[in-house]
This record gives sequence, structure tokens and C-alpha cells, in this order.
Amino acid sequence: MNILEIIAKKRDNKILTKEELNFFVENYTNGNITDYQAAALIMAIYINGMNYEETTNLTLAMANSGEVLDLSELGKVVDKHSTGGIGDKITLILMPIIASLGIPAAKMSGRGLGFTGGTIDKLESIPGYNTNINISEFIDNVKNIGISLMGQTLNLAPADKKIYALRDTISCVESIPLIASSIMSKKIAAGAEKIVLEVTVGSGAFMKNIKDAEELSKTMIGIGNLAKKETICVLTNMNEPIGYSIGNSLEVIEAVEALNGNMKEDVKEIILALGSYMMMLAGKGENIEENKNKIMENINNKKALQKFKELVKNQGGDVSYIDDISKFEKARYVIPVVSEKDGYIKSMDNEKIGYISSSLGAGRLKKEDKINNKVGITINKKIGDKVNSEEILAYIHSDDYDIGIKAAQKLKECYEFSKEYIEKQKHILGIIK
Amino acid sequence: MNILEIIAKKRDNKILTKEELNFFVENYTNGNITDYQAAALIMAIYINGMNYEETTNLTLAMANSGEVLDLSELGKVVDKHSTGGIGDKITLILMPIIASLGIPAAKMSGRGLGFTGGTIDKLESIPGYNTNINISEFIDNVKNIGISLMGQTLNLAPADKKIYALRDTISCVESIPLIASSIMSKKIAAGAEKIVLEVTVGSGAFMKNIKDAEELSKTMIGIGNLAKKETICVLTNMNEPIGYSIGNSLEVIEAVEALNGNMKEDVKEIILALGSYMMMLAGKGENIEENKNKIMENINNKKALQKFKELVKNQGGDVSYIDDISKFEKARYVIPVVSEKDGYIKSMDNEKIGYISSSLGAGRLKKEDKINNKVGITINKKIGDKVNSEEILAYIHSDDYDIGIKAAQKLKECYEFSKEYIEKQKHILGIIK
Repeated sequence: MNILEIIAKKRDNKILTKEELNFFVENYTNGNITDYQAAALIMAIYINGMNYEETTNLTLAMANSGEVLDLSELGKVVDKHSTGGIGDKITLILMPIIASLGIPAAKMSGRGLGFTGGTIDKLESIPGYNTNINISEFIDNVKNIGISLMGQTLNLAPADKKIYALRDTISCVESIPLIASSIMSKKIAAGAEKIVLEVTVGSGAFMKNIKDAEELSKTMIGIGNLAKKETICVLTNMNEPIGYSIGNSLEVIEAVEALNGNMKEDVKEIILALGSYMMMLAGKGENIEENKNKIMENINNKKALQKFKELVKNQGGDVSYIDDISKFEKARYVIPVVSEKDGYIKSMDNEKIGYISSSLGAGRLKKEDKINNKVGITINKKIGDKVNSEEILAYIHSDDYDIGIKAAQKLKECYEFSKEYIEKQKHILGIIK
Repeated sequence: MNILEIIAKKRDNKILTKEELNFFVENYTNGNITDYQAAALIMAIYINGMNYEETTNLTLAMANSGEVLDLSELGKVVDKHSTGGIGDKITLILMPIIASLGIPAAKMSGRGLGFTGGTIDKLESIPGYNTNINISEFIDNVKNIGISLMGQTLNLAPADKKIYALRDTISCVESIPLIASSIMSKKIAAGAEKIVLEVTVGSGAFMKNIKDAEELSKTMIGIGNLAKKETICVLTNMNEPIGYSIGNSLEVIEAVEALNGNMKEDVKEIILALGSYMMMLAGKGENIEENKNKIMENINNKKALQKFKELVKNQGGDVSYIDDISKFEKARYVIPVVSEKDGYIKSMDNEKIGYISSSLGAGRLKKEDKINNKVGITINKKIGDKVNSEEILAYIHSDDYDIGIKAAQKLKECYEFSKEYIEKQKHILGIIK
């Protein structure tokens, strides 16, 4: 077996065997296969595609390319993952709820490149919260209080890291088998037994339309089945930001508000959908509607909030910030974005909103960039809202006045208006099992 | 314009503009575009193809990526090129004929990786022959005696060199637009005004069947037309070696024999076809049959041989070797390959014969390898010949006894026999203008 034969096979649209995919992943990870050979193969995969079996074999090879976390002593761990969105604070709200229902909540999260930080960056905006714990501490935390959220300190799926970075530089990002194997390899390496995936769809997501999102979902479920990791996908709308905040401490504040029962409708729907299927996969209830009721119950009785506070305390965070969210340090300038038009909001350029958030310092463009926890955007008006001119659409939170003013102008341009009535967006677009 | 957009366009099977192809070639040559980005683009080109206009634009960009030889002061120089074969000594015979007919014969040749050396390696088996002259000497030689054959000392089409080397490592060799642009870029950079291409077809050639050879020919003619370099393709059979010798000094000997009038039928047919069309392109006669008669005349009256001797003398070679070919040093062992079977020869594995020649030391596997001028193969029997067992099929010329014996055994396995009558091979398979 050699890489030239493997490249030639996929070039000619033939099916790669498990052994061939293992050979590629192993030898690319250890440097025996060059970047240009990998680039040629990845392009051939992009153009000619892979079937479910190939995609699964690539996924497992990538999952096994580094350390693989064994969480079996915690029982059946259900992991949750989102393909990414603007203002995505769902993990911060959902995992404490899950833990409060007696399901082990053991989740490693990334920092993420992009519009805001990852979950780990958001948690670090709580003074003292330590995301950099070791694995035995992580497992002990889950055993003791049922929850731990930590950074990805292990060398999980290094092949995926290498392939992902390469894809970015050779215009091979938007490939469904490659996206699916990237996501699933990390989940499998992180020890998930069952997986609920939030597949985001719309202008702020990788998948711009339902058809692609369904195909990605089916591919990931196919991988899950073949890899014996039961997987359910929840398709959610990403044509507007999730909830009302974008930014690191701003999103923690929204999460705490949500756990206090003040949840935006879209956040609530997503939490209920993801949470109820996670319960089902964990063997805590087959009836989705009943599961949703149990989730609402643990929000209303503050058990989920209590769990979040336990989590923060247990990992060294200052719980007084959770009890009094006004303690979070604010950005120097809070600049209103005032509408110049009347009418119904017809669309929001969600991807551009993400870039604006990033330009304020809420996200990273390069791995080395430092995140500013305080900055971001709070959204007042979303699609379907009726707005009069002079009404405030959003606020920019910036530490730099000029950058903030520019961001406010740009954010205004993200809104499109209509004189006609516009319906509010649906948030859950489908469940694929 | 950036490389990511260019890769994405070809990935999506769109047509690249002249500017985009120039941008790629220029920036890959100077190192701004990485090997892995080039690999991704080349794979996308391999799979999705390129139209004639794209192929021509790529060709011209590669031709202009380094020095471009200007031979206009010599008049209309007609170049000749072969896509490669086993035992290909055609240039050595043809160029002196052309020069003897008053057509400027100014040819740069490569060393070539492969089964034997290139034309330049073959010429260097004549003691003293200097292939490494400078350009003004080269042009002066052609002005003075009508002919010069030199090595490729200029930095011609460096982009092609880089892309060719890359293609080899990413399974992207057998692509018609890429082969066509590689050949034509070198010819254009080498100053050709008109071009006759020998497109070889069969087991010892890149093109395994007529259909592919025709497509390659049409592509190269298309490039030639768009680049204003009139081009004619002669399709020749490469299911068996050309003539009777494979190896460096062995082929020089065969060339001298040919110029003395002792020419194998296949060599003669190829020489007449290529030569008569070169004459036509040079404006020396529209009537192909008449041109062929003129060529035979200059062989028979030894004018072509005389021109070859002038060439050798002019470039420092020892002409006494041409006058007495027995002076060429011989390999230590000449091992007969004896047939074990009766019957008509049905096929020869020409590619394998090439590898055997290379294993004896006649060719290079790596650029740094040194060639052994003396070794090689002489072929006694070819397709359609009737052979009795105990008859000699060929001779192995080797400096190492064990290697020679092994080569003889392997060569025997290259022959396939039939009890039925087998026709001799046709040598000229078509002319494409």
C-alpha cells in the first residue's frame, strides 16, 4: 500500500478501504505523508465524495490518531455538539440542566476560532473558573457533583486538527463527508457514548440550506451507527443570532438569566429539543414531551441554576458573579444602534454580525489572539419584529469608541426591512434520527 | 485575486481565466503559493479537466515563467518532440537529415528520467561531444553548419519543472491537459516557431490507446494554434521498441548505421513521416511523398551522415567513432536471450523492457543517478516475427554478470507467443493536423 495508489483510487472515484484510510491518517499524522499529498487526496475526496462506510472509517482513524478518553466509568455519557452559530451559549445552559436530571455531564470544549470564543472562553469570563484541569479531576468532578466542563487539554484527534488546518488553506472546507468526519472524530475521541448534534442552518452557519444540513445530519448519523455511537441531529435556525447576546461575559450573563427562568423563546426551544433527546439517549425517558416538562421543572425550581453554581464553585470560579450578574465588568462604551427605518425586520446578515462581534475583540482571527471578555453585541430586535425609526435595534459593547461606532454602523447595515408583515423565524427545523 | 478563489473555481468545475492561471503560475514559481495549494489545484484540474483555452493559457504562463529562447534570427525553426518511447534514437537521425536539407536544426534536449538517457546523454557517449555550450555558440553553430544539439542549460519553463515534479508525487501524471501544457510550454520556451510532435501510443508510452493519443494530439494542436505555433502530430506505435537498440552508445551506433543507409523499417517510416512534415512546416515542400524522396536521397548520398559528422566535430566530439562504430566501448557481458518457445511473437511488454534497460544502468531512476553508456539491450525479434525455440530473441549488454542474467530472464518473460500467424505492427498510426 502506498499513498500514490490511494490518491489515484479516490482521484478515479473508487472506494477507499478501511486499511487505506488508516494508512493515510496514520502516516499523515506522523509526517510520512506530505501536506501536498494530503492536499491532493482531500481535493479528490471533496470532488468525488465518500460513502458512509468510507466516512466512518476516516472518522475512526482520525479519532484513534491521538488520545481517546475513556468515560465508561461514568456510565453512558451523552455528548452535545453544535456545528456553530452566532451567540451560541446553549452548552452553558443545557449541561447544568442535564446534570440536574441525574445524567453525567462530562464535556470537553474547544476555544474555537471565529466570531466569539468557544464555551471554554466564555466560562473563563467567570473570575477564577479553571478550565485547565486534569482528566482525573474532570472525572472525579462528574462523579462528585455530576458535571464538569473543561478545556480540550488532551491530544484528541490530532489527525483531524492537521486535516482541518489544511482544508482551510486549500478551499476544501465545505465538504459534507469532511465536516462530518471532523466533528464525529472529536466526539468519539472525547469519550461520547451517545451524541446529540445541533446542526445549524442559515446565513450564520456552515450549512446554508436545509438540504445540505439534512445530508450532513444523515452522514453523521450514519457514522454514529457504524461506530456504535447512537446519534440524533436537531436542525436549528441560524438566520439570526441565538438569544440576545453575542460575546463572552455577555453570553454567560444571558445563560445565568436563562437558568433563572428568563429565557428567550428561541433559546428555550433549542434547550428543550436538545435536552429532551439527550434524556432519551441517556435512558431517562422515551416521551419527548414529558422530558421537556422535566427540563422546565428543573429550571423553575432552580435545580439547574444550583447545578451551574456547583460547577462554577467546584472549578474555582467566583459564585458571587452568578448570584449577582451586575458584578461582571462592563465594556467601556455601550453604543445604541438606532434604526433609521420603519417596518418589519425581514432578514439579518448573521455571518456579518459574527464578523462584527469578532472585530470588537470577542473572537479570535488567529490562534494567538487574546479575547476581550467584556465586548460584544446585545440584540434588541430580530426577524419579524416591527420597528419604528429611532427605535434601538441593538447595542454595541466596545472598549474602543471609534471601533464601536464603526461596528454600530455596520450592524445597522445587517438589518433588512419590509413594509409587509414578516413572520417570526422558526427555531427548530427538524429532528433527524 | 487569491489562490483560494482559484482553487475553489476549478474545484467547482468552472473555467479559469488567463489572469487566474498567470497568477497561479507566477506565484507558485516564486514560492508565494505552497506545494499543498498547488497540489489541490492540480488534482482539481486532473478531475475536472480544462478546455483548450485554459490549457493554452496555462501553457503560455509556464512557457513565460523563465527564460524564453529567441531563435528568430535563424529563420523559422521547426522543432521536433516525442512523447517518449523505448529505444527512441529518432532525433539523432532526423536532425542531421533536416539540416542537410537546408532547414535550421537548433534543438535543446533534456537528459530525461526513465528507461534510457535523453538525447543529450546519448550524444555524450561520443567521446568529447560537448552538450553544455552557451546560447550564442549554439546559435552560431546553426548559422555556420546548420545544426546544433545541446543540453537544456537555460532556465526554461521552471514552472513546468515544479509542476511536473509535484504531479509525480500526487498521482496526477496521466492528465491530457497537464501533459499537453507541459510539453508545449517547453517547446515554446525553447524558441520553436513550428512543431512536429511524435505522439507515441502503446504499452511503452504514456498514451496506452489511440483515443487518448488523438485527444492529446488535438489538445496540443489546439494550444499550438492559439499560441500561433503551427503544430502537427504523428502518432507512432510504441507496442515494441523503436529499431533494434536500447541504451546510450548502442543507440548512437544504430543512428550512425541508419545514416549509412542501414535503417530498420520502423525507424525509416518514423523518420520519413516526421521529416516530411517538418519540411512542409519549414516551407520546403507541400508534397509529402516528394519530401520523403528528398529525405531518402540525402541518406543515400550520405549528405545527412556528413551533417552528423559536422555536428559531432563542431561540438568537440571524436568523429573517428562515427567513421568506425566498432571503436565504441562495449559492455563487459553480452548475454543472449534464447527463446524457449516456437511460434509467432504476439506481443512484447514494452514498458517492462524499458524498466529492464533502466535496471542495467542505461537510464536514471533519480536525477542524481549516473548513466552507464555501454549497457542496454539489442532486440533481434519483434512482433510478427516467427521464432523457433533456441533462436536468439535479444542480447543483454551488462557490466554485471548477475544483473545481466536476471535481465535476460526478465526480458524473455516480456515476449508472448502465438501458434497462429501474427501480422507485423504498423508503425505510423495517424497524422493529425
